[in-house]
Amino acid sequence: MNEFDLIDRAFRQKLHFKHSLTRIPGGDDASVHAVPAGLELVVSTDMSLAGVHWPHDFPLEHAACRAVNAALSDLAAMGAEACWVWVCAVLRDAAAGGQMGDGIAAALAGSGIELAGGDTVHAADNSLAVTVAGVVPQGKAMRRDRAQAGDDIWLCGRLGFAALALERWQGGDHSDDAVRAFADVQPLIAQGVALRKAGVRCCIDVSDGLLADAAHLAEQSCVGMEIDISAIPSLAELQQHVDPDDAAGLVLGGGEDYALLCTAPESLRDSLSAHAVRIGRCVAGGSVRALRHGVGIASSRRGFDHFA
Amino acid sequence: MNEFDLIDRAFRQKLHFKHSLTRIPGGDDASVHAVPAGLELVVSTDMSLAGVHWPHDFPLEHAACRAVNAALSDLAAMGAEACWVWVCAVLRDAAAGGQMGDGIAAALAGSGIELAGGDTVHAADNSLAVTVAGVVPQGKAMRRDRAQAGDDIWLCGRLGFAALALERWQGGDHSDDAVRAFADVQPLIAQGVALRKAGVRCCIDVSDGLLADAAHLAEQSCVGMEIDISAIPSLAELQQHVDPDDAAGLVLGGGEDYALLCTAPESLRDSLSAHAVRIGRCVAGGSVRALRHGVGIASSRRGFDHFA
Repeated sequence: MNEFDLIDRAFRQKLHFKHSLTRIPGGDDASVHAVPAGLELVVSTDMSLAGVHWPHDFPLEHAACRAVNAALSDLAAMGAEACWVWVCAVLRDAAAGGQMGDGIAAALAGSGIELAGGDTVHAADNSLAVTVAGVVPQGKAMRRDRAQAGDDIWLCGRLGFAALALERWQGGDHSDDAVRAFADVQPLIAQGVALRKAGVRCCIDVSDGLLADAAHLAEQSCVGMEIDISAIPSLAELQQHVDPDDAAGLVLGGGEDYALLCTAPESLRDSLSAHAVRIGRCVAGGSVRALRHGVGIASSRRGFDHFA
Repeated sequence: MNEFDLIDRAFRQKLHFKHSLTRIPGGDDASVHAVPAGLELVVSTDMSLAGVHWPHDFPLEHAACRAVNAALSDLAAMGAEACWVWVCAVLRDAAAGGQMGDGIAAALAGSGIELAGGDTVHAADNSLAVTVAGVVPQGKAMRRDRAQAGDDIWLCGRLGFAALALERWQGGDHSDDAVRAFADVQPLIAQGVALRKAGVRCCIDVSDGLLADAAHLAEQSCVGMEIDISAIPSLAELQQHVDPDDAAGLVLGGGEDYALLCTAPESLRDSLSAHAVRIGRCVAGGSVRALRHGVGIASSRRGFDHFA
């Protein structure tokens, strides 16, 4: 089997869905797409590696599915509709190509998102670079630098469960449940669109951990934040599995659940309460403080930093 | 230095050019771009690894510059104007980040192309996934499946020199000249636009080798091709360095020069002769034959196949 056969077999045969805005699909030097008047293009790229973003012994199909969904989460954070994915797959062998193809197909199945192109290379270790693109109405993309003191802080999605699942896998629990608990990350595309339509203009996805990503948003918006973790529904659920301090650490520092953290003026409370949970308030200053029932707490974990 | 500092230092500080169509630049969850009415979006992605696409001991700055330019060549092949680049950099250490940043900056300097986003990860070996995007007038992208029997075959750019330079590097010539000879690949963006404006509708870039890429074009267009290498200017130049058989092999099989191979009806001869050299003719059937002064020859090299 040569490179071109492998690409065809692993990817294209399983992934022949073509988006209605695509004019020339993958298989040429580049793909070509229409972006209708009134819409803007939204693009993000993410790299995932065996041994960094998933354990080496984690099933590759699930790891690839997770990598695609993680990349799509960046479109969710902008309030974009997802349209296309391009992948650069580094593969140990042809079997890895099949498994990655299965995982990418699983991530995109029924999503309305097209695999519009890619590249495969043979090397010692598996990795997957994923570029995603979508569309958003002109001027309506949610961004990180629009929070204002006095805004409410809202959370859409769960926190801490991916970190808990990863700890369990690394502790030796290799059951199907453990695989699913780490791998089944869902990009909150529909929720991001709903938040944007409800009027939200400021959002980030929680990939590095709540405190770390809140700090990014606070820094770019030049505000401070006070987040009361007792308002986060995940906390009580996590406390059924681990002790309260560990649960707080997982909620504040556990990354890769891809929840959406957004801010909005009080006037949007009624319309947002159907989509998210209110967990705090933007304040003057630049620091992000975590509280429990109004009392400041320290986090036992930090966002993951590849070069620390 | 943490991950975010590294990204900032290695990439953003050197690369603050913003394209006029960009609405939200890199640094948010995703970048946002306008695609004006009458234009279509063109996207391609390419993966380059140390040890595969460049020798491990090759200067990383030059390797990264080459990787970006190689990716941009796919836009040239579509006749697109290049606008944006996104990179996923896998880095051995912070020094590699600086070198990759220098190389990316060198590739984009003065090009009018924006580094619109990226991701960096720390791992054992350096690699760079590059996604490129540009715009082309609606319905005018050059594609691989538009050649017809009777069309002329045209070549724009040089062939064989990248393969020769790589052989010399691997043979121990590590001079600055040898670095430049392998690394100084220029994406033929302006030439691709000129070919498209002259009426060309069928084009491919020569990344795997002339015979291999001609075969891709022939297969997708359902035509045969006869290419006379004695018409290729590179051949005489290469014969000043290597014997005639090796020169023919370099021209037919040497990849990574990123010349443009296109086809067009005879009626375009006058307008194309300013931009390219006529090297053959499309014929009925499906095979690609290389000739020298009209006599069939065998190639001593084949396109590079990562999984062969």
